[in-house]
Amino acid sequence: MVRVTTRALVFDVFGTVVDWRSGVARDAGALAGRLGVTGFDGPAFADAWRRRYEPSLRRVAAGELPWTNLDGLHAGSLAELAPEHGLAPTGGALDPGDADWLVRAWHRLDPWPDAVQGLDRLRRRFTLAPLSNGGVALLTAMAKRAGLPWDLILSAELVRAYKPDPATYLSAPRWLDLRPEQVMMVAAHADDLVAARAQGLRTAFVRRPLEWGEGGPAEREPGPDEVDLVVDSFPELAERLDA
Amino acid sequence: MVRVTTRALVFDVFGTVVDWRSGVARDAGALAGRLGVTGFDGPAFADAWRRRYEPSLRRVAAGELPWTNLDGLHAGSLAELAPEHGLAPTGGALDPGDADWLVRAWHRLDPWPDAVQGLDRLRRRFTLAPLSNGGVALLTAMAKRAGLPWDLILSAELVRAYKPDPATYLSAPRWLDLRPEQVMMVAAHADDLVAARAQGLRTAFVRRPLEWGEGGPAEREPGPDEVDLVVDSFPELAERLDA
Repeated sequence: MVRVTTRALVFDVFGTVVDWRSGVARDAGALAGRLGVTGFDGPAFADAWRRRYEPSLRRVAAGELPWTNLDGLHAGSLAELAPEHGLAPTGGALDPGDADWLVRAWHRLDPWPDAVQGLDRLRRRFTLAPLSNGGVALLTAMAKRAGLPWDLILSAELVRAYKPDPATYLSAPRWLDLRPEQVMMVAAHADDLVAARAQGLRTAFVRRPLEWGEGGPAEREPGPDEVDLVVDSFPELAERLDA
Repeated sequence: MVRVTTRALVFDVFGTVVDWRSGVARDAGALAGRLGVTGFDGPAFADAWRRRYEPSLRRVAAGELPWTNLDGLHAGSLAELAPEHGLAPTGGALDPGDADWLVRAWHRLDPWPDAVQGLDRLRRRFTLAPLSNGGVALLTAMAKRAGLPWDLILSAELVRAYKPDPATYLSAPRWLDLRPEQVMMVAAHADDLVAARAQGLRTAFVRRPLEWGEGGPAEREPGPDEVDLVVDSFPELAERLDA
């Protein structure tokens, strides 16, 4: 049933398609090296930056901030974090060029090892798009660098509403002229899928146990009554969907 | 200079990338055959449908119609045209399934013979997107069928404003986080390029002498002071842009 009716797959990106932690740690570490910062912990910095993500989205959703795309939110949280991690003097700021370069580390993330192969296979049967809180420029640059074979870029930025706002999930079938049940949301995060399903989308959970690194906190795995599919990889998703 | 600063190319689609006339004539002819219509002239039907395009856009721009995507406008003009061309009885209507299928002929258009090869080459150096009055679903379906290697789909529908509204041209650099002069509009229509240039975009005119068929009306070719480049094909555009 899921196989027959699904026409498009839309993907959460950070943690689901790409490994944000390794990429951010890599580029932050490179910048720390250029700046001569000693004892810099790249993965801890990446984790700290990512932990500011959801609170920053909530400030936009609550109207405390005007609409700001993810690059803008990342820039704001970086300004706070840089002194805490020795990338800027206490009370000081990164050089604007360095800050801009590091914000774009989120454009330069590598896919999980199975991701491109799985997407290439899924694309033969389905329309594929990200459905991410990342902005259009970010998702486009990431796809071009990483070889993600999207058919189109869908983003919270197109509707100026961050997931889990229902408008963002509903935008995917609307842009594609499909019914919600013809669109499947793929994510490594249960809350994203629960919110997508509430709007009528199909859902597939992908286990990404290394999102927060070896020994990092585990994502809650949704039960079989909460999502349509649970898989370990994108090729397994293709297999399950006969793609 | 144009080579150095250009980061993204955005393309008019109908007539520039794809041959709407042959594709619409083909599918309309097939439907006429199924319906047993005698003496049906597919190319004349395609021309008549296309001639209703600009007036329908203007009705939206003038506020006479609420926002309606191009599929909706095509459906409206098809309802008027069908009886005139014998596809429906005088005063009558096409079967809704047939009408929907024929409206989607605009999703099933073939590229000009040089288009995919040129785009494949341009894509190595530039971000590529349509910037079309066609809707997101239309442009996505067309690209998937025809193998158009877009990096993302940009459409008037994303900003609910049809070209030549300045908002549509300006949306391309805005979505891509570029300056207008880093984006080049590619089109076979001088008026599209003049409007794009007025918003600061670079412009390339592509000669498509067969858009309205052999012996059809010729598009006015813009002068060297009106556009940045004039080419005969997408591979020539790639050559001129060192891609």
